[in-house]
Amino acid sequence: MSDLHETTVASEPAYLGRLVKVYVETVQLPDGTQAVREIVRHPGAVAMVPLLPNGDVVLVRQYRHAAGDLLLEIPAGTLEPGEDPVQAAARELQEEIGYSPGKLERLTSEYTAPGYTTELIHIYLATELVESRLAGDADEFLEVVRLPLAEALRRAERGDLPDGKTLIGLLLAARRMGM
Amino acid sequence: MSDLHETTVASEPAYLGRLVKVYVETVQLPDGTQAVREIVRHPGAVAMVPLLPNGDVVLVRQYRHAAGDLLLEIPAGTLEPGEDPVQAAARELQEEIGYSPGKLERLTSEYTAPGYTTELIHIYLATELVESRLAGDADEFLEVVRLPLAEALRRAERGDLPDGKTLIGLLLAARRMGM
Repeated sequence: MSDLHETTVASEPAYLGRLVKVYVETVQLPDGTQAVREIVRHPGAVAMVPLLPNGDVVLVRQYRHAAGDLLLEIPAGTLEPGEDPVQAAARELQEEIGYSPGKLERLTSEYTAPGYTTELIHIYLATELVESRLAGDADEFLEVVRLPLAEALRRAERGDLPDGKTLIGLLLAARRMGM
Repeated sequence: MSDLHETTVASEPAYLGRLVKVYVETVQLPDGTQAVREIVRHPGAVAMVPLLPNGDVVLVRQYRHAAGDLLLEIPAGTLEPGEDPVQAAARELQEEIGYSPGKLERLTSEYTAPGYTTELIHIYLATELVESRLAGDADEFLEVVRLPLAEALRRAERGDLPDGKTLIGLLLAARRMGM
């Protein structure tokens, strides 16, 4: 197949919420026919693997209404419109775990679900952490959990860490550390 | 913090599309106050890392309208209501890459974006592949790409594979193979 591209023919807002904004878009397919795509437009996000000198990773446990459960995750946050991802990463680390990163290395950027959402999460390895706290969102309740990276990897391998960005961040950090 | 749970106080459908269904839900927070959560309810999905005896992984390249780009991904598909994930995995492999799996091992299940969607993707390692083809969705255009798993991992480490489930599947498969 020489060309798999689709071109947008029409776009209509279908639901404009606070965080979730849905558009119904008509696209022209590679064979010339048309199809309808429902797209959630999302501002993007950042997520960080905060690694302490002793090999502990700093995670957050929070209740996720969509999952109906408490999830153990790497710190993360939605981008403000126009916000630089590196600045957002530093802000979220101070808000969620009380550390400022001396060093942020990009691990990757992931589309969380490219079948229907534009969300792209930029994932960083955060090291040279210095204690520094900023007040977080009023409706965000979370518990900070320190865990040896090796133990976090065992949980990932057992299927016990169900958050996508957390799996990607920990597994890529492990490869970078030769673990 | 002893209890981080939220309880649902009210739920209203806000947009009911074909794939994307948004609900606006009021929850009671751990401190007794209330907050509004926008939730995309999704039927879930399966994704498979199909590994051939020679060490090649079989991927699919397709245009993702939400990403605005061609993405290289592991085969995947949305669950039909009530469908068994293992049966869905076998069906999607035959539709997308023309192989039926002799063996499916669960690697993990990932919440793609638990901040706003219920989507859970069950990810499998698929081996003992036998050629077998089923007709796929009419509006799905894709190109099958074989790649040594080691090369796919190098791309993941370079940040060149931006699909979330693909990163998780390949990285967990690599750990299981001792790579």
